[in-house]
Amino acid sequence: MSEFEESGIGEECGVFGCVAAGEWPTQLEVAKVLTLGLVALQHRGQESAGIVTSNGVNPPTYNTLKGMGLVNNAFPPENLLKLRYGNLGIGHTRYSTTGISELQNCQPFVVDTLHGKIAVAHNGELVNAAALRKKVMRHGVGLSTSSDSELITQLLALTPPMEELDAPDWVARIKNLMHETPTSYSLLVMYTDVIYAIRDPYGNRPLSIGRLVPISKLHTAGAGEGETEGWVVSSESCSFQSIGAKYYREVMPGEIVQISKHGVKSLSIVPRPEGDLPAFCIFEYVYFARPDSIFEGQMVYTVRQRCGRQLAIEAPTEADVVSTVPESATPAALGYAQQSGLPYVEVLCKNRYVGRTFIQPNTRLRQLGVAKKFGALTDNFTGKRVVLVDDSIVRGNTISPIIKLLKEAGATEVHIRVASPPIRFPCYMGINIPTKEELIANRPEFEDIAGYIGATSVRYLSVEGLLSAVQGGIPSLQGKDGRINTNASRRVGHCTACLTGKYPVELEW
Amino acid sequence: MSEFEESGIGEECGVFGCVAAGEWPTQLEVAKVLTLGLVALQHRGQESAGIVTSNGVNPPTYNTLKGMGLVNNAFPPENLLKLRYGNLGIGHTRYSTTGISELQNCQPFVVDTLHGKIAVAHNGELVNAAALRKKVMRHGVGLSTSSDSELITQLLALTPPMEELDAPDWVARIKNLMHETPTSYSLLVMYTDVIYAIRDPYGNRPLSIGRLVPISKLHTAGAGEGETEGWVVSSESCSFQSIGAKYYREVMPGEIVQISKHGVKSLSIVPRPEGDLPAFCIFEYVYFARPDSIFEGQMVYTVRQRCGRQLAIEAPTEADVVSTVPESATPAALGYAQQSGLPYVEVLCKNRYVGRTFIQPNTRLRQLGVAKKFGALTDNFTGKRVVLVDDSIVRGNTISPIIKLLKEAGATEVHIRVASPPIRFPCYMGINIPTKEELIANRPEFEDIAGYIGATSVRYLSVEGLLSAVQGGIPSLQGKDGRINTNASRRVGHCTACLTGKYPVELEW
Amino acid sequence: MSEFEESGIGEECGVFGCVAAGEWPTQLEVAKVLTLGLVALQHRGQESAGIVTSNGVNPPTYNTLKGMGLVNNAFPPENLLKLRYGNLGIGHTRYSTTGISELQNCQPFVVDTLHGKIAVAHNGELVNAAALRKKVMRHGVGLSTSSDSELITQLLALTPPMEELDAPDWVARIKNLMHETPTSYSLLVMYTDVIYAIRDPYGNRPLSIGRLVPISKLHTAGAGEGETEGWVVSSESCSFQSIGAKYYREVMPGEIVQISKHGVKSLSIVPRPEGDLPAFCIFEYVYFARPDSIFEGQMVYTVRQRCGRQLAIEAPTEADVVSTVPESATPAALGYAQQSGLPYVEVLCKNRYVGRTFIQPNTRLRQLGVAKKFGALTDNFTGKRVVLVDDSIVRGNTISPIIKLLKEAGATEVHIRVASPPIRFPCYMGINIPTKEELIANRPEFEDIAGYIGATSVRYLSVEGLLSAVQGGIPSLQGKDGRINTNASRRVGHCTACLTGKYPVELEW
Amino acid sequence: MSEFEESGIGEECGVFGCVAAGEWPTQLEVAKVLTLGLVALQHRGQESAGIVTSNGVNPPTYNTLKGMGLVNNAFPPENLLKLRYGNLGIGHTRYSTTGISELQNCQPFVVDTLHGKIAVAHNGELVNAAALRKKVMRHGVGLSTSSDSELITQLLALTPPMEELDAPDWVARIKNLMHETPTSYSLLVMYTDVIYAIRDPYGNRPLSIGRLVPISKLHTAGAGEGETEGWVVSSESCSFQSIGAKYYREVMPGEIVQISKHGVKSLSIVPRPEGDLPAFCIFEYVYFARPDSIFEGQMVYTVRQRCGRQLAIEAPTEADVVSTVPESATPAALGYAQQSGLPYVEVLCKNRYVGRTFIQPNTRLRQLGVAKKFGALTDNFTGKRVVLVDDSIVRGNTISPIIKLLKEAGATEVHIRVASPPIRFPCYMGINIPTKEELIANRPEFEDIAGYIGATSVRYLSVEGLLSAVQGGIPSLQGKDGRINTNASRRVGHCTACLTGKYPVELEW
Repeated sequence: MSEFEESGIGEECGVFGCVAAGEWPTQLEVAKVLTLGLVALQHRGQESAGIVTSNGVNPPTYNTLKGMGLVNNAFPPENLLKLRYGNLGIGHTRYSTTGISELQNCQPFVVDTLHGKIAVAHNGELVNAAALRKKVMRHGVGLSTSSDSELITQLLALTPPMEELDAPDWVARIKNLMHETPTSYSLLVMYTDVIYAIRDPYGNRPLSIGRLVPISKLHTAGAGEGETEGWVVSSESCSFQSIGAKYYREVMPGEIVQISKHGVKSLSIVPRPEGDLPAFCIFEYVYFARPDSIFEGQMVYTVRQRCGRQLAIEAPTEADVVSTVPESATPAALGYAQQSGLPYVEVLCKNRYVGRTFIQPNTRLRQLGVAKKFGALTDNFTGKRVVLVDDSIVRGNTISPIIKLLKEAGATEVHIRVASPPIRFPCYMGINIPTKEELIANRPEFEDIAGYIGATSVRYLSVEGLLSAVQGGIPSLQGKDGRINTNASRRVGHCTACLTGKYPVELEW
Repeated sequence: MSEFEESGIGEECGVFGCVAAGEWPTQLEVAKVLTLGLVALQHRGQESAGIVTSNGVNPPTYNTLKGMGLVNNAFPPENLLKLRYGNLGIGHTRYSTTGISELQNCQPFVVDTLHGKIAVAHNGELVNAAALRKKVMRHGVGLSTSSDSELITQLLALTPPMEELDAPDWVARIKNLMHETPTSYSLLVMYTDVIYAIRDPYGNRPLSIGRLVPISKLHTAGAGEGETEGWVVSSESCSFQSIGAKYYREVMPGEIVQISKHGVKSLSIVPRPEGDLPAFCIFEYVYFARPDSIFEGQMVYTVRQRCGRQLAIEAPTEADVVSTVPESATPAALGYAQQSGLPYVEVLCKNRYVGRTFIQPNTRLRQLGVAKKFGALTDNFTGKRVVLVDDSIVRGNTISPIIKLLKEAGATEVHIRVASPPIRFPCYMGINIPTKEELIANRPEFEDIAGYIGATSVRYLSVEGLLSAVQGGIPSLQGKDGRINTNASRRVGHCTACLTGKYPVELEW
Repeated sequence: MSEFEESGIGEECGVFGCVAAGEWPTQLEVAKVLTLGLVALQHRGQESAGIVTSNGVNPPTYNTLKGMGLVNNAFPPENLLKLRYGNLGIGHTRYSTTGISELQNCQPFVVDTLHGKIAVAHNGELVNAAALRKKVMRHGVGLSTSSDSELITQLLALTPPMEELDAPDWVARIKNLMHETPTSYSLLVMYTDVIYAIRDPYGNRPLSIGRLVPISKLHTAGAGEGETEGWVVSSESCSFQSIGAKYYREVMPGEIVQISKHGVKSLSIVPRPEGDLPAFCIFEYVYFARPDSIFEGQMVYTVRQRCGRQLAIEAPTEADVVSTVPESATPAALGYAQQSGLPYVEVLCKNRYVGRTFIQPNTRLRQLGVAKKFGALTDNFTGKRVVLVDDSIVRGNTISPIIKLLKEAGATEVHIRVASPPIRFPCYMGINIPTKEELIANRPEFEDIAGYIGATSVRYLSVEGLLSAVQGGIPSLQGKDGRINTNASRRVGHCTACLTGKYPVELEW
Repeated sequence: MSEFEESGIGEECGVFGCVAAGEWPTQLEVAKVLTLGLVALQHRGQESAGIVTSNGVNPPTYNTLKGMGLVNNAFPPENLLKLRYGNLGIGHTRYSTTGISELQNCQPFVVDTLHGKIAVAHNGELVNAAALRKKVMRHGVGLSTSSDSELITQLLALTPPMEELDAPDWVARIKNLMHETPTSYSLLVMYTDVIYAIRDPYGNRPLSIGRLVPISKLHTAGAGEGETEGWVVSSESCSFQSIGAKYYREVMPGEIVQISKHGVKSLSIVPRPEGDLPAFCIFEYVYFARPDSIFEGQMVYTVRQRCGRQLAIEAPTEADVVSTVPESATPAALGYAQQSGLPYVEVLCKNRYVGRTFIQPNTRLRQLGVAKKFGALTDNFTGKRVVLVDDSIVRGNTISPIIKLLKEAGATEVHIRVASPPIRFPCYMGINIPTKEELIANRPEFEDIAGYIGATSVRYLSVEGLLSAVQGGIPSLQGKDGRINTNASRRVGHCTACLTGKYPVELEW
């Protein structure tokens, strides 16, 4: 239970694509691969899910399946059966927001153009969406949803207006789109028999490519290219394990990669403005991504562990035990314990069945608060001074009852150590963050945050500490002496806007 | 059980709109009026339903509710509660087609334009839809559905491209649209605080206006204009009764009517090409419409009764009793009985609970066929010669087991009398008809149709007989002598394309 | 729309059984026959449905399927597939009552006894249920439901206590039960490979036997016994048509019939007390049964028509047209029209999609009342004096807005003719009737019932008239001269308790 | 992911009861307390859930709510609203079994007796159920389910047969029941205004009592008896935290406790046969219970940790790291790590969204196996020798692909250490265990279990080691010198039948 989870902070989406290699029609059952791939990206979005497959012939037949809720609920068995498997396809899972469920916002978005259908799946948020919406509407196009994905499809179709005679140059259209909007997007565009995988020039959202091999060859080094059964592309590499794919590489910032049955081909890299560094979202490391995903050559779990170690260096504590707010903070807590030499114990046991209940809370239930989701493992901390590591404090109302629970159950001191810096600024690039006023770091109570939440002490990881924990493990940055390679560091950068207010591009509103 | 029903012949849609009169915010609960109005149009479409309401201020807030299935299922109670009632709104009910349910095809279609949102509900089918789709796609617009409604909204937004500075002249845009496509559409366009109600120049689909009055004044002649609580517009006037509205008038072929809180205003009539007559779909009279609806000043029930009378004149029978295939053929059967002087009896009792069952039919069940939906009221026909009136024979496989049932249960003769002419041609204007090859009237078996279906004899109403039954009751056509007023007849006309192959406009494909 | 329907008067249940003839395992798909049979009895109960099949070997395997709602909803396809078809089985459909749905009350009721499982399906209501419940509870048996069916199964098991050594004599136990409770029940008891079909000694509830024949032989007189594919037993013979069965005979009052693969065998007839006549519920004729069902050798439709004729004799009217409140009153209305010589027309068109809506009625909707379910076919009655035949007036609040609708739409007079006598007394034998105070016939307003409901005049059929209409058509009662055969009449009788207060047995409470 | 979970080993049920203290009607919202209490026991059963409340007056009104699936799904919001809250109530959550869902088996079981309704909720399995069923059936009682709960209610009602005049002595009836069946049951019996909480004489299943206090007093020592808001009784004390209750005490083996608004009262202790020790199920400690529950004065988590420590003593390993198969084996793994001095790391990351999917597995998916539920945290074990602690090996087919995954991802050795002895025998007291033939410990492959599952080595905890880990922490057993108090040990005992084949009572079949 992270404060992120409780506070409604969340990723906007996950995208996933698959192209069968070799002869078509394929035996690969692309729709099943897509579905399992999306299940592995489920933490990036639980509101709705969708997949679109293509048979890959010209003109192609597209089959679409969309539904509200988790992937396994969104695609009922009778509909999965109806879906022709296809030879390639893309899928999308969407973040849960409140309100009347809107199937029409569900991605992938498919539109018919003069040259046939394209399907688009998008993770991110266009910083200049408002201006772009005006632009397409000025052309006389009506927009039926508020989603960036529809906007992207219309921009691809619109600019320049289509000519009936020529085949469309989709790559040129994609480049054109990338020049019109600098960030934030990881994008899959399917057209007939090919998927284009695109990351914005700042590389703000992740996107990785994997290779499907025979299951028997999955973990052997020697599965040659000839044994490739298909290619997949995913917001996170954690999905590769569940479908039997090997990690291949990341899509680079600004890169357009074409994936077809013939393989993976880099078509172009749209550059950033001179002098701008990449701006990969640092919170993918801190919280959003699954710990077994790999970004920039390093495993997310290990980065979190380093954050915990760095935190122990920056904010050491006189205490008896180190523990975690399960489950997302565990690697940081283990890192803190290792660095500090204090023993790691579990102090809370999560009731995994507590979910959305229909019971209207009364006073008694409200008073119990989030603590009702946890059992206290009192033997492990009674009479002890506890360092409790969490990955964030957003509003401060989640950690507070947990501290109370621990203290009343016998902890003599509860020191909160947060494995990331305070969040102070909104994100305009795809993350759902409470308003500035709701963020505890911007409120008067922050002056005495320990008193406010009832902790013995509270310390955060510094921005510098976070950056060093993240960047210190990127292979390309590691010089022979273990120090950061200064040359390479010119090509590495992370977006810390929510912590520092420094946005990678100027915001236009 | 009509052959139409069994054969999957059906109307494409129903549309309904409502504007509260007087001061806003209204007490009228527009969303409830829309829902009940759609329930009364349910026979025009059971696949999905949708409503969109507007609060009518500038810029407006639109609220949308859509769902699959019957109106009462499509809008679950919790969602209806969430819907703000609004001061005006439009709704739509869609015909049931097969395949994976597609909520995205559900109307009304709402798009955001440079000048705000418009909502469109459409009944009909654009004869030149393919050419129009190409046109908007050539402009670089992607189309996300195959529905004419999206096409219409994009055409309204597109032509001419929108200017940011000026207010949009929606009426000009609507006229422009009407010049681009001659038929078939009855259309509701909602923009902020007004609904435009439009019928195509041929008047192919119906559209009527009603006036909401205090319930206590509903049936009194004297409810003055000042007592108007709101205005409604509906595919059929049958819906007025259920919401407490009085019939006001039809929208004329080619007319654009503006409905606002200030009342009903005719803005324009877009003319047909010189010499063309209107082409109101004659099957609205024969089968589609509810019998209590009023078209062209006459009640549908009465027209069907006249068809039965005319049939008795054209095809008299030596028989003992006249009966109906319940329920849609009953007025025609009563008309036949009255004209022929033969007694009217019921011979079949319909099991109203037989619906879509999940049971896979085995040989036994298949052999029972449609007859399992009916009980034979044997006392009424054993040992008798029966005239059985139906409203149509489409494929011939529905009436056949009914005849068998009657004969085996003791009818000595079964004479089929069909209260409409044979259907031979496809409809391109909004009606779902089997392919030409499936229509019994185009097949070799038609030579001996009586033998084929097992009847003693089969006779159809003639096209001329149908036209005279329909047109003979239109008030404006009745001269003082009871004969048709020749002058007026120049302004009256009906589409009989499915019977005669004469389409009101040249078909472009 | 009958007042019965609107007033919540309803039958308690329908029962249906089937045994495959010939060699087992059968090809008959007994579960499908049961399901379709129950669909045809759906008018007798919509709350829940259940079927139990047996493979018929010793010890038998029983399979049970139960669900809430209509038969087609209660048995979802995946469950129907799971059901092994069995060689025999019984089913039940239950009347809709309000409150939290209670699957546990759903029949058939199956219990395991020392000698194996028995399954029971029951239509009716035991007049001495309270005393019998006390009796079994005094034996130390707990009852888990309030249903008579569980009570019956426990009574069958309990009396006399079971002996382990002997085979149980179920027939003796059934007889014992019949001596403990005189009425009201039509009962199916399944045990291993046999179904016992039982009617109480008064024959209060109906029960008929049918014979499944090859579909091709369904309507031919010559289908010999050798061609029997199975036997069915049903609350009403209307279900035979839908499954391809021929009417065989009724179970007699007090009779225990054994149905097995070897055929139908009458085991015993438990007599009534000396001097008591049978008491078949007269409202099965008046309202509950489907018109194509056959009781006592006559078709229900024809009885209703005779009621209408008798009403025309008892209560003639100066009027222009005769009509019906659709649909259940139609045969009576046609009978009235035939007898009176007045023309029969339709004045109301029912919206078959109006059902349970989730919309909370506001004042406007409430004022519209039941009239929103009907369209007025004004052409047929404007300026005319209308005789409107209904089958009952229960509370008087349904017919009232219909009369208002007709008058305001132009009827000059509306004469209500009711094809049954006023209901004044509660039923304790299986019919759900409003309390005595709610019945209009017991209220002061009844003095001027015409004024109260707004009719020009109101007349009811007399009890004698009803009895003569019902009994005058029973074949065994018709002497050669057309008069009632006095000898036979000693063996015919009907329960008119709700009309006269004369209950067939003394009530114990 | 424990092998237990994957193998379908599971507890049969959880029970929960609540009585409001003080004046009635209570403000406590008993139904909400019951629901939340059941959510906290959800790990003991996910098939169905039910609650019954009583208003506590004489005669009482009982309200029942039952449903299939998880508690939050089983009680939809509209039904929870309908439930009157009541002043006391009991609830039940049932283990998931396969097959057609059977709502009728859902507990609590309520029956009406001569003296009113009793409700029963049961956890356990009667060892002599078959004989008892025969007994009640011989009395002439039919049993409608195969559940022990119905059997218990009928036994309570039956013996001795009820007398109408006297008030029933339920306690005598309960004692009578306890003499008829020695084990296994923890039972809640509600009658009007009181709940009887009963554990069988062997104490085979757990049952604990808690005290509801004002939330503000929840964790303070000083909440006096006077501040009691109600009493709860639960299969496990872990549920107390979620509803704001303090742990009070366990129900003793053989004890009948009466809980009323006046408090908790021990009525009787039914003894075991001379010389028999208690037989609390040792697998409650090993696997079933939630780690924060307290049995016999000790926390389950701590017992599991001790098992891990003991395992490290019995089966030390040359290795680099210790890890867990998440999540249930984590305390044992941490214990192993602490005892052995090896570092604890995480090697697997569980995808918490992988659940029941509708996708039909193809060859590729089947080959991936359980590994698709886990991500490998490779950085933590590549090139290392891993000790992987699991809580059990049941069939051996779950751990095998995990070992393969670790080895292929770079682990040089994988040593499996199992924190419990091999399971070899069936359980007849409430635990669902595969057949003897399916248990890996009974199969030839067990000879070379390491080779069979692909591990470098496999070692189990000994039965003696398990017993010492469990009993060594029971407070009453700890003498002053830390050694086991021999006197007290005569009153402590655990059922190890599934490990040793020694059942606490002779089995009658």
